[in-house]
Amino acid sequence: MRIVIVGGVAAGMSAASRALRHDPKAEVVVFERGEWISYGACGLPYVLGGDVEDWQALVARTPAQMRSRGVGVRLGHEVTGVDAGAAQITVLDRATGRTTTEPYDRLLLATGVSAILPDWARTDLAGVHVLRDIPDGQAIEKSLAGAKRVCIVGGGYIGIELAEAFRARGLSVVMLEKAEFVAGRVLDAEYRGRVQAELERNGVEVRLGVSVEGLTGKAGRVTGVQTDAGLVRADLVIVAIGVKPNVELAKAAGVRLGKTGAVAVNAAQQTSVAGIYAAGDNCQSLHRVTRRQVHVPLGLTANRMGRVAGVNMAGGSAKFLGIVGTGIFKVFGLGAARTGLTQAEAEALGLHAASVDVSSTDHAGYYHDASPIHVRLTAEKGTGRLLGAQLVGCRESIKRVDVVAALLHGRGNVQDLAETDLAYAPPFSSVWDVLLVAADRLGREVRKG
Amino acid sequence: MRIVIVGGVAAGMSAASRALRHDPKAEVVVFERGEWISYGACGLPYVLGGDVEDWQALVARTPAQMRSRGVGVRLGHEVTGVDAGAAQITVLDRATGRTTTEPYDRLLLATGVSAILPDWARTDLAGVHVLRDIPDGQAIEKSLAGAKRVCIVGGGYIGIELAEAFRARGLSVVMLEKAEFVAGRVLDAEYRGRVQAELERNGVEVRLGVSVEGLTGKAGRVTGVQTDAGLVRADLVIVAIGVKPNVELAKAAGVRLGKTGAVAVNAAQQTSVAGIYAAGDNCQSLHRVTRRQVHVPLGLTANRMGRVAGVNMAGGSAKFLGIVGTGIFKVFGLGAARTGLTQAEAEALGLHAASVDVSSTDHAGYYHDASPIHVRLTAEKGTGRLLGAQLVGCRESIKRVDVVAALLHGRGNVQDLAETDLAYAPPFSSVWDVLLVAADRLGREVRKG
Repeated sequence: MRIVIVGGVAAGMSAASRALRHDPKAEVVVFERGEWISYGACGLPYVLGGDVEDWQALVARTPAQMRSRGVGVRLGHEVTGVDAGAAQITVLDRATGRTTTEPYDRLLLATGVSAILPDWARTDLAGVHVLRDIPDGQAIEKSLAGAKRVCIVGGGYIGIELAEAFRARGLSVVMLEKAEFVAGRVLDAEYRGRVQAELERNGVEVRLGVSVEGLTGKAGRVTGVQTDAGLVRADLVIVAIGVKPNVELAKAAGVRLGKTGAVAVNAAQQTSVAGIYAAGDNCQSLHRVTRRQVHVPLGLTANRMGRVAGVNMAGGSAKFLGIVGTGIFKVFGLGAARTGLTQAEAEALGLHAASVDVSSTDHAGYYHDASPIHVRLTAEKGTGRLLGAQLVGCRESIKRVDVVAALLHGRGNVQDLAETDLAYAPPFSSVWDVLLVAADRLGREVRKG
Repeated sequence: MRIVIVGGVAAGMSAASRALRHDPKAEVVVFERGEWISYGACGLPYVLGGDVEDWQALVARTPAQMRSRGVGVRLGHEVTGVDAGAAQITVLDRATGRTTTEPYDRLLLATGVSAILPDWARTDLAGVHVLRDIPDGQAIEKSLAGAKRVCIVGGGYIGIELAEAFRARGLSVVMLEKAEFVAGRVLDAEYRGRVQAELERNGVEVRLGVSVEGLTGKAGRVTGVQTDAGLVRADLVIVAIGVKPNVELAKAAGVRLGKTGAVAVNAAQQTSVAGIYAAGDNCQSLHRVTRRQVHVPLGLTANRMGRVAGVNMAGGSAKFLGIVGTGIFKVFGLGAARTGLTQAEAEALGLHAASVDVSSTDHAGYYHDASPIHVRLTAEKGTGRLLGAQLVGCRESIKRVDVVAALLHGRGNVQDLAETDLAYAPPFSSVWDVLLVAADRLGREVRKG
């Protein structure tokens, strides 16, 4: 059994490990076009900000470690074609420029996503970057030398995390966002506002409703961003307006894509083509709350899909049952988290949703250093079925979102949350934890109909 | 409708508030034998330790606030008898010594628990204390003047929390425990050991397997604790060996007690006597994992029972569906939490339980200030039904226990936990949160049979 894996970051390496665990006799080969494998891409902004020691620290397992476990790792090898009929791939060795073909019994496409690059960002000017992988991060690190003012285009997760990193490095930071809010797809308006306020409190200049038209440069280096609201001077520009799944190989192999544009897979991570699996950011996943296919590329999901694909390619039987839309990010002294659906998302899907907002403290108000925590809880009117939660608060306290995520998996009711025996002691929680207060109020709200 | 409530701390005041909300025309009268109502008794050790400003800070609502909401509050009034046939109670006004009778339509017994006082602790010596209410705390505060060495008898929640408080006050602290471990009923041996190590690391002298035989004193003040292992000098002694439910009134009223010795109630918080309800620490509750009645007096449970009783006494319909055995406490820089059953508890009940232990970090290991977290997850062999979890780790990280608690409510499986879409970003979690690692391993373990 020869298992060939394209892409060696999260899904790819998880698959390789699980495949070998399931069938130690399988031949497992990973082709990675870059030079780094098995690293935590979510940690990239934090290396730049100094929260992580160095790039190497993000690596979970080195190529040498994977090889000693029996995984063939081919760095600098880009898979350029798939012939599903012949069950073989075409591989370009980037160092030598040589192309070879490699046979497979099972093929995994773990090709991830790429940053969306609008026309204006396709430039030869130095100082214009995206952040998707370690080489991107290293390039930004180099560009930081002498840089004073950075312009981040895009107010999503990555833009927000990078804003914090650059402030920590002492740079002046301006964030441009086309929409009228930051963290737009993730939180409802009230909660986006708290994130924006935290950015601004920490010296990030947030400009909303601004469209970028081009870049200005001098002596080969970027000097500013031209927008419909004038020129924004910057000697470093980050393009973080979103990502798109890398589906070229899937298309070449005749693999069906979903409506989201990402690869369509079943619960076993099989694609529409026999013998070809897909896992990770390039794939759709089932949203268990809406029962729809969505494209939400996140680290845990990628690793999970990889494990499932690995087991199945090795002849086992595993399923990835989907996500519930959980996400979390840090913004300076705050954290923001969500799971399920926001009120806006629920309404857009035609659900009769009700939400309550509760502000409390992370632990008993009378115990020292109690910090504010804000929760929006959303449920379906009438039935009381939980639909989602959003939390903004001081750091760790928002991991409470996981309680709601657990209930969403079981299609829990707001009453289930209200009755949950949560852990209480004054240093850890109020006697009525903010989640219980929200569930109690929302329970009365949804019963009104 | 005249609703009479005996006891005005947690359950009693929750009941009063909910009863009036449900039926604003009801007459609600609370008889409290002490002078304080509606306060967070779980915060008592933290006032002594200086983590809470003062005793008043523990008060959620003052008598004046409750009265302005329409609740009759009679402080210093001890209910000494119940005549269920005549539907009236006997009340002693402690200030005047006068006894009167008061009629009721619905009666709530929210009489709480008392500290267990062994014979040796029944003394006239100054400097010997229990900690159950604010006056107890104030008495300890007074006793602290000039005290240098405190002996805490008992290694449970309260003893542990007080050890921390006294160390913060600069006292020398020795803890005596009859059993061979601290936190005995709460955690399995491996996890108790971590708690004990944290006590010792912070200068608490822990002596295990020691039985107290008596006290020594001089000039009316305690000078030491006589044990089967010799004399332990101390100028302050705390007796924290456990609590017992206050059931005298219940007995007088002919109310049935459960096997635990606490008041037996149904899900509506009704006792065996028509018109008489009970709520709070004096009651049993249903353990949803074992389906047995247990006596686990904790703050959230008491408040919940109170609310349910309040609604029902006012003519509404509410149910308290029970607990899953969640508990949490702080011990210096660590926290310990548990939910469901320990391995030892599961075995004692004849369940075929398996546990796995996982040590990880509270967030991504490469992100600064990652702290250790240790999790034991327990499930039933074969079926994989989740039975419980124990966590020891740095402070807030152990609130993860709530995720398992939520799943226990729905009789979830270890596979449900393994599949839960938990929130991941490097400052908040490892990509595979410690709970997911534990669930994955335990899933394989229980399938072995």
